[in-house]
Amino acid sequence: MSERLAFPEFAPGSVWLVGAGPGDPGLLTLHAAHALARADVVLHDALVAPEILALAGPAAGFEPVGKRAGQPGPAQLRINQRLIELAGAGLRVLRLKGGDPFVFGRGGEEALALAAAGVPFRVVPGITAGIGGLAYAGIPLTHRMLSPSVAFVTGHGAGSGAPRDVDWAALGRSARTIVLYMGLRLLAKVAEALIAAGRDPDEPVVLLSDATTARQRCLRSKLADAAAAAALIEQGAPTLIVIGPVVGLREMLAAGQQNAPALLIDEAVPRTAGAQGE
Amino acid sequence: MSERLAFPEFAPGSVWLVGAGPGDPGLLTLHAAHALARADVVLHDALVAPEILALAGPAAGFEPVGKRAGQPGPAQLRINQRLIELAGAGLRVLRLKGGDPFVFGRGGEEALALAAAGVPFRVVPGITAGIGGLAYAGIPLTHRMLSPSVAFVTGHGAGSGAPRDVDWAALGRSARTIVLYMGLRLLAKVAEALIAAGRDPDEPVVLLSDATTARQRCLRSKLADAAAAAALIEQGAPTLIVIGPVVGLREMLAAGQQNAPALLIDEAVPRTAGAQGE
Repeated sequence: MSERLAFPEFAPGSVWLVGAGPGDPGLLTLHAAHALARADVVLHDALVAPEILALAGPAAGFEPVGKRAGQPGPAQLRINQRLIELAGAGLRVLRLKGGDPFVFGRGGEEALALAAAGVPFRVVPGITAGIGGLAYAGIPLTHRMLSPSVAFVTGHGAGSGAPRDVDWAALGRSARTIVLYMGLRLLAKVAEALIAAGRDPDEPVVLLSDATTARQRCLRSKLADAAAAAALIEQGAPTLIVIGPVVGLREMLAAGQQNAPALLIDEAVPRTAGAQGE
Repeated sequence: MSERLAFPEFAPGSVWLVGAGPGDPGLLTLHAAHALARADVVLHDALVAPEILALAGPAAGFEPVGKRAGQPGPAQLRINQRLIELAGAGLRVLRLKGGDPFVFGRGGEEALALAAAGVPFRVVPGITAGIGGLAYAGIPLTHRMLSPSVAFVTGHGAGSGAPRDVDWAALGRSARTIVLYMGLRLLAKVAEALIAAGRDPDEPVVLLSDATTARQRCLRSKLADAAAAAALIEQGAPTLIVIGPVVGLREMLAAGQQNAPALLIDEAVPRTAGAQGE
C-alpha cells in the first residue's frame, strides 16, 4: 500500500530519530517502517516490540540502549556519542524510541547533540502512549463538554526541589485531563496536591500498564485511592496514570469498542487495596 | 513491509475511527493504511491529503464531512447518524479524521454515539499536529531541563463564559510548554492572561500553519507580540500556537535537521507587524 507514496531518502551518514509508538506494531508510521527496512544499524529502547525490530532489513545490526524503569542502561551521553560515531562511519543510523521521540523521550537532547556535531538527522514522530494507549483503553483524552485541555507531565525527576518541578495545584486548576508519565512513585504526592487544589477525591483515575500490547492492564481507581492502587502494578511495567472526568466515559464506550477487547482487563480497586497483605 | 504483521479484521457493519495524522501521508500508521485499503466507504475531514485518500481501494466510496475553520460543514449529529446508517447497511465504514480522533477531534462524541447505537467500532490513533507538526518544525515538545510538562488546549468555544473555560493563569504557572489548537482568535486574551500570571513577555512563540505539508509555514514571535503575528496567517489555514522555552531550541536544531527543510520557512515577525497596512 505504501509503495504509492514518495519517501525521503535515508542517506548514509545520517541519523533518524524515530518514534516506535506505544507498543502495537500496527501503530508504527509508514515513514518509520520504510526507514527500518533501509537502516544499517538500529539503536533501540528496551521496550520496542520484536515484531517492530523484525521490520529491519536482514543485514541490519541492532544495539539495545534503552533503560527500563529502575534498571540501569547506557548513559544518555554515551548514546549521543554512539549515534555520532556510527553516522561518522557512513552508516544509516536509526534511533528507535518508544512512543514519540520528543515526548519525554530525551529525543531533544539527542537531536541537539547531533546538530552540534554537524550530523544530519531527521525526526519521525511516533504515537505517544498518552494518546494511543488511552485510545486503546477506551478513554478519549479530550471531550468538548468534559475536557478542553489535557496536560502531559513526567514524574521522573520531580519532587527534587529543582526549579523544573511542576506546580501541581495550578495544574489541577487548569488541566481537566492529566496524563502522568513515569509517575507511580510520585502519585501519592500528586493526588494529595490535586485534592488540596480542589479536585474531587472521587474523580476517576486509570493506571494503564503496557498500553496497546498483549500485556495491557488497566486498573480503575479514584483520585483519593490511586496511590494505593499503584501498589498493585507489576514491578517495572511502564505505566501511565490518567486523571480526569474523561476516564468516566470508558464504561460507555466499552459496549462497542473492539480494540483488542481481550486486553481490556478492567479491575476495580477496592478502597482497602492498600491494606492487603498487611 | 507491513505484510509480515497481523492486522485485525475490518468487519462489515463496523466503524473504524481513524487518525490520518497531521498532513504528511508518511505519518499515517500501518493500521490506518491497512484499513483504508479495505474500507467500503470513507467519511473524511476536508483537510485530509489526496495522497492519503488514494490509499483506499478502487471500489471505495468517499463522503467529505469535515469542517474547515470558519466554513460550515455537516453538523456533528448528522455525521454520527450517517456512520450508524452506513454500518447498519453492512458496510466497512472508515471515519478518517485529521490528527488523532481523540485530541480535539470530537472522536469521543462519535464513539459514544456508535456505542449507544450498538455499532461495533475500533479506534486507530493518529499523530496529532501538536506533536508531529512541532517535530517537523524542529521543536521538541518536552525537554528534561526546560519542560517537564506540556498542555494541549483548544481555543475553540473558549471565552464563552462556559464552565469548560480554561484557567489560563493557572495554566501559565503549571505548563512550561503550551500548545493551543484553533486558538488564533483567542491569542490576544491568552497572551495577556499568561503575562499577567508571570510568564515572560519575551518568551518565544511559534505559529505553525499547515504543519508537515508542502504549505507548512512557521512564524516566529514572542508572547507579547504573538497576537499581532496571528494577523499574518492566511485565512483558514489550520494553525497551532506553541508557547514556551522549548521553542528556542529550534535555532539550535535547524543546523542538522532534514525534515522537509524547504518547508521550514521561518519568518521573524517585527514588533510593528500589527501596524502594517494601518
